[in-house]
Amino acid sequence: MKLYNENMPAPNPRRVRIYLAEKGIEVPLVRIDMMKREHKAPEFMDKNSLGQVPALELDDGTVIAESVAICRYFEALNPEPALFGRTALEQAQIDMWIRRGEFIVMGPIGNFWRHAHPRTAKLLKQFNDFGESNREAAARSMHWLDRELEGHDFIVGNDFSVADITMLCTVDFGSFIGLGIPDDCANLKAWHARVSARPSAAA
Amino acid sequence: MKLYNENMPAPNPRRVRIYLAEKGIEVPLVRIDMMKREHKAPEFMDKNSLGQVPALELDDGTVIAESVAICRYFEALNPEPALFGRTALEQAQIDMWIRRGEFIVMGPIGNFWRHAHPRTAKLLKQFNDFGESNREAAARSMHWLDRELEGHDFIVGNDFSVADITMLCTVDFGSFIGLGIPDDCANLKAWHARVSARPSAAA
Repeated sequence: MKLYNENMPAPNPRRVRIYLAEKGIEVPLVRIDMMKREHKAPEFMDKNSLGQVPALELDDGTVIAESVAICRYFEALNPEPALFGRTALEQAQIDMWIRRGEFIVMGPIGNFWRHAHPRTAKLLKQFNDFGESNREAAARSMHWLDRELEGHDFIVGNDFSVADITMLCTVDFGSFIGLGIPDDCANLKAWHARVSARPSAAA
Repeated sequence: MKLYNENMPAPNPRRVRIYLAEKGIEVPLVRIDMMKREHKAPEFMDKNSLGQVPALELDDGTVIAESVAICRYFEALNPEPALFGRTALEQAQIDMWIRRGEFIVMGPIGNFWRHAHPRTAKLLKQFNDFGESNREAAARSMHWLDRELEGHDFIVGNDFSVADITMLCTVDFGSFIGLGIPDDCANLKAWHARVSARPSAAA
C-alpha cells in the first residue's frame, strides 16, 4: 500500500502521519504537492474523485480517502494501542470529540482560510466579510474547548486518542493562518503543550 | 437511557431515528423543540454544552452527543445487522462516505440554510451572497454523487449502511430548503427512491 500525503501544515494529511507515528506503523508515503495543485491533477483525481489528500491506496488499487477513515482502517488491522477507544462508551466519546473538533473548531478555521486568507484568494471566489466573521467564531470555539478541557489531561478523559490528534492538527493549523489560541485559554494551552511534547507531534 | 431528539426535518436527529429503526432498537425519546429553541435552554445546555440535538443520556447521566457517535455506541452494543461495515475495508469505506456526505454534500446545504434561508435569518448574522453561492455548490456536489453512484445499489457497494442514512437525511433536508436533486441525476434519484422505500425512512 501507499499513502498519498502532503507535508506540513495541512491538517488532514498530518492527522494520518501522527496516527501512524503513535501506532508505530510505517507506510510508504507519496508526496502530493498541494501548492503545485498535484491533488487536482487527472492521475490523482482518478484515485480520489474529490482531489483531496490524504488517500490510502491498497495493493489491489482500492483507495480509501478521508483521514479518519484511513486511521480506522489501520485501527481495525492493528488494535493496539487503542486510539479510537476500547469500550462502546469510549468509542462513542472519541468519535463525538473528533466530530466536535472538525465541525466546531475546524469549521470556522476552515471558513476563515477559504474566505479571508490571501493564500487561497486565487483558488476560489472569496466572500471576505463572511470569512472575517469566522475569526471571532474560531476564538469562541476555542474558549468553549478551553472550558471543556477543565480537569482533563486529554480530550477524552485521561488517554490520548484520535480526538487529540484531530484537535492538535486543527489548533496548529489555526495558529498557522493567524487564528492562534486566545491568551486566556489556560486549559487549552496546557493541553496543547502536553500533546505537542509527544514525539508523534513532529510527524 | 433516553434520546433527546427533534422531529422532522432536521437531518441529524433523523439520522439516529432511522438507524434505530433499521436496528430494531427502541429508546425513549424526549422531544426537544428546536423552533422553540429548547436546545439552547440552560437545562439542556447542561447536558450538551453545544446546545445541539440529538443527545443520548445514559442511566448514569453520561451524555453522548453527535448523531454518528450515538449510532456507533449502539452498534458496539448491538452488532447485528452491521450498519458500519464488517471488515476493516468496509468500515473504512462507510466512514469515508459518511464524512463525504457531511462535508461535500451537507457542507453547501448547511451553508445555504444558515446564510441564505429566511427561516434562519433571525438566528445569526447572515452573509447572503455567500449563502446563495452554495446553491450552485450543492448542485455540483449532487452531480458528483450521481456519478459516484453509477453501478451501485447503495452508497457503499450493495449493502445499506449508515452512509446511506447520512446521505438520505442530507438530500431530504436539501429538498426541504429548496435544494432538491437536479433533474439530470438519474443514479441519485434511483438511489433516493430505493432508500426512501425502506420502512425506516419514515422515522
